[in-house]
Amino acid sequence: MTRVYNFGAGPAALPEEVLQIAKEELLDWNKQGMSIVEVSHRSKAFQELMQEAEQDLRALLNISQDYSVLFLAGPTRAQFSMVPLNLMGNKGKAAYIDTGIWSHMALEEAHKYGEASLVCSGESSRYTSVPERNTWNVDTDAAYCHYCANETINGVEFHEIPEVGNLPLVADVTSTLLSRPLDVNRFGLLYAGSQKNIGPSGLVVVIVRKDLLGKALPITPQAFDYRLQDENQSLLYTPTTFACYMAGLVFKWLKAQGGLKAMAERNQRKAEMLYAAIDNSDFYHNPVDPRYRSWMNIPFTLADQNLEETFLKEARLAHLVELKGHRYVGGMRASIYNAMPEEGVEALVHFMKAFERKNG
Amino acid sequence: MTRVYNFGAGPAALPEEVLQIAKEELLDWNKQGMSIVEVSHRSKAFQELMQEAEQDLRALLNISQDYSVLFLAGPTRAQFSMVPLNLMGNKGKAAYIDTGIWSHMALEEAHKYGEASLVCSGESSRYTSVPERNTWNVDTDAAYCHYCANETINGVEFHEIPEVGNLPLVADVTSTLLSRPLDVNRFGLLYAGSQKNIGPSGLVVVIVRKDLLGKALPITPQAFDYRLQDENQSLLYTPTTFACYMAGLVFKWLKAQGGLKAMAERNQRKAEMLYAAIDNSDFYHNPVDPRYRSWMNIPFTLADQNLEETFLKEARLAHLVELKGHRYVGGMRASIYNAMPEEGVEALVHFMKAFERKNG
Repeated sequence: MTRVYNFGAGPAALPEEVLQIAKEELLDWNKQGMSIVEVSHRSKAFQELMQEAEQDLRALLNISQDYSVLFLAGPTRAQFSMVPLNLMGNKGKAAYIDTGIWSHMALEEAHKYGEASLVCSGESSRYTSVPERNTWNVDTDAAYCHYCANETINGVEFHEIPEVGNLPLVADVTSTLLSRPLDVNRFGLLYAGSQKNIGPSGLVVVIVRKDLLGKALPITPQAFDYRLQDENQSLLYTPTTFACYMAGLVFKWLKAQGGLKAMAERNQRKAEMLYAAIDNSDFYHNPVDPRYRSWMNIPFTLADQNLEETFLKEARLAHLVELKGHRYVGGMRASIYNAMPEEGVEALVHFMKAFERKNG
Repeated sequence: MTRVYNFGAGPAALPEEVLQIAKEELLDWNKQGMSIVEVSHRSKAFQELMQEAEQDLRALLNISQDYSVLFLAGPTRAQFSMVPLNLMGNKGKAAYIDTGIWSHMALEEAHKYGEASLVCSGESSRYTSVPERNTWNVDTDAAYCHYCANETINGVEFHEIPEVGNLPLVADVTSTLLSRPLDVNRFGLLYAGSQKNIGPSGLVVVIVRKDLLGKALPITPQAFDYRLQDENQSLLYTPTTFACYMAGLVFKWLKAQGGLKAMAERNQRKAEMLYAAIDNSDFYHNPVDPRYRSWMNIPFTLADQNLEETFLKEARLAHLVELKGHRYVGGMRASIYNAMPEEGVEALVHFMKAFERKNG
């Protein structure tokens, strides 16, 4: 077996060490005589797993007891509805920062449950930058302000937490959580789908300031009520047990790597290596404002669009896969989450240079 | 390693052959050089997996093209909201049959989105039976009639599909789907969480008559709209890829076992063996009306409640686990889904007889 370097945006590569553990114990987890996927979520062993995962995540992100950590089932996209349903409350309105496909979708969804006002939009730059702070229009009476910390499709990332006054800040951190340290205390709520830096798909991690709970609108589906999940230690319903288990293994792997500071250094090196290869060439191009270039998702185009198919085909032969850009923006995209080793990015850069020499 | 017999209600035992395949290919699925959990849901290989899973499920249940088959993410409980949100439409009301904890919860949730009228309730029998058909009150103007085909907690199962006139019949078949043949054409919509007879938790299979789609209320979360999932071949958002993969393997395993007719024969034998052991003893007791006794979940009590802890402890030493009844009803419960072999039930009956001899 040759393991490939997988640059897919998600479901994404996971640490090989984690997959090896999962493989070894797939029929007999924790001396239970059964697979982790057969274990009851009400069993002592599984509840210990959940508690340990939560503790490890709290340690990695330095999460205080003012915050609840929830492990929810379902698509990340459901959060676009859950956030307004749970947090809009009496205010009936929320503010949205629009910097790409995903934050725009969150904004659209919020309209269903109240007034969603636009703080600013990067649409005029084709989502390659974020409007200057002094042009923003933040409704100070909104229930919260929402933004997407890293747009996976456009490759736009906030390297600083935006300043929105006293509004609780809500962030979709699906593709950046755990890639670097984050000051959780600056937020009202953070949510992240698992399929980037956390584990297999089917799990959503929510970190929410406890004082924001208990304001869900009456139409909120029971399965969507953060407060109920908080009261039930994320066991209101059967969680996605396998994804929770894998997330727990990934958290331990991250601790063994030296935690988020070490990951940030590694991720920055990886991103800089790839951006340098793009910028030092006339053959490759990344359109994003350098102040907002993502460390996780790096879209790029070739000088000659007709070479795209050849690029992808030859990359695959070099064991570099899932480099095709998202259908909304075209071109190429390299997603280089935590589990992508530096050697993987080196191999990509090496391949890109050779491809340019041959075709440039 | 000694594999135990796992009588848990869900997440439940899976076929060992299926787990072996998953283990063998966990780091390299389908010659992709990556794990199934790392594979993009937009990749050709994964889409083929989904299509094959759907075809196999259609073959097993003989599902016609009048029905869509959806593989959704999220907790089964979300269906309690999704069903009224998607199907109540202009009618604004629906009829609910109340035969246990789960169908009662579905009824309560439906009140949020319209009028949920009660057809009948088994509550007065402590959910050990279903009221006679001639006492039912079916609102013929309702958008649909909902029931739970098998109540996992109370052990109450409909062995015939209830007759509700022209109303589209909606059934929670979480713990009975695939345990026996089912005439899908009698239904408007069927839904089943995966963690019983389908695979790991985190997947919900929905089979819906196409003409019922497109009536979602405006407040329906986008991720909850059946029609959007139908239009997107269940890829509106990232599905729970590992659960979909395992479900596909389970469907193939079921076909290899001879399909649902063969499973029904085996499941009936298993259930009859266990009910006989209970009924032929003064030591064990099952309270359910024999006409409605579940093939899948068999609750029972001991003559002396003080022996429960000893029973569970000694059962565990005999490698028979997860026999503790649900906290709502107490006592014991043996869940004997498809993956529980006849030898497992024989071992349980053998143990029960020995325990009775010693303590009866």
